[in-house]
Amino acid sequence: MRHTISALVENKPGVLARCAGMFARRGFNIESLTVSATDDPTVSRMTIVVEGPGEVLEQLSKQLYKLMDVIKVSDHTAEATVERELALVKVSAEPEKRAEIMQIADIFRASIVDVSESTFIVEVTGDEEKIDALQSLLRQYGIKELVRSGKVALVRGAKMT
Amino acid sequence: MRHTISALVENKPGVLARCAGMFARRGFNIESLTVSATDDPTVSRMTIVVEGPGEVLEQLSKQLYKLMDVIKVSDHTAEATVERELALVKVSAEPEKRAEIMQIADIFRASIVDVSESTFIVEVTGDEEKIDALQSLLRQYGIKELVRSGKVALVRGAKMT
Repeated sequence: MRHTISALVENKPGVLARCAGMFARRGFNIESLTVSATDDPTVSRMTIVVEGPGEVLEQLSKQLYKLMDVIKVSDHTAEATVERELALVKVSAEPEKRAEIMQIADIFRASIVDVSESTFIVEVTGDEEKIDALQSLLRQYGIKELVRSGKVALVRGAKMT
Repeated sequence: MRHTISALVENKPGVLARCAGMFARRGFNIESLTVSATDDPTVSRMTIVVEGPGEVLEQLSKQLYKLMDVIKVSDHTAEATVERELALVKVSAEPEKRAEIMQIADIFRASIVDVSESTFIVEVTGDEEKIDALQSLLRQYGIKELVRSGKVALVRGAKMT
């Protein structure tokens, strides 16, 4: 099963390497990871998406929490969360195809953020399924490059992570 | 100086740990990092934001490229790029403050994606300055939680990374 794990960590060199190392030593492939400072610049927040059996990941979350400079770890699998991803897609856009691509972007509330003679860069935000769907629609025109941020998540309601 | 580095890597366990370990051993603090699969599921794309002197980071990029399972490394510092970030902000939103917060969100083309009796979750996408500006405006209401994806970047025009 796929798990989304948030970790609050001290914003110091080496913390990411320790956390990523723990997953690697156990042979887990991290599907996506984002890390960036929170509103407190001394604290960063990591969002890790990883596939594996529930019990094993529960153990792993506990071990993550024991690492130096890790403040808090939450597995969101059983919680109601807002989950979002951002993607930039550079797609072939010859003049005769542009109107079509712009229509698709419109439907997905995506924006064209760069234009060259032969390409567009499309920016889109949404849940994973939405980005997957846009990506597979754009594939017919030729995706030249694509970057996805990976998932970020917050628990719904007033509750904190 | 601040550098934005993209790395294409094999989507395998351990690659992120090796890359993060290289920065850590040299005492570099990664300001933000995102990693997620590209349109080719066997290849992931990492976007790393790190502060340091140009020559040192140039060396570091070369060493990154030499690591196992690293396919390509580009430093975007001197290039025209589209750079975007995504943030979710859980902000205190007592009923009498809601209209104000919704106005601010409107101005930033941000969306309210969750509401509870006492909180909103605001979703925003943009460059770093835009997200910083919204974050500092929302601070007066009380930011309860915040997650930022960290930067993703693509080179403008038809050129590939």
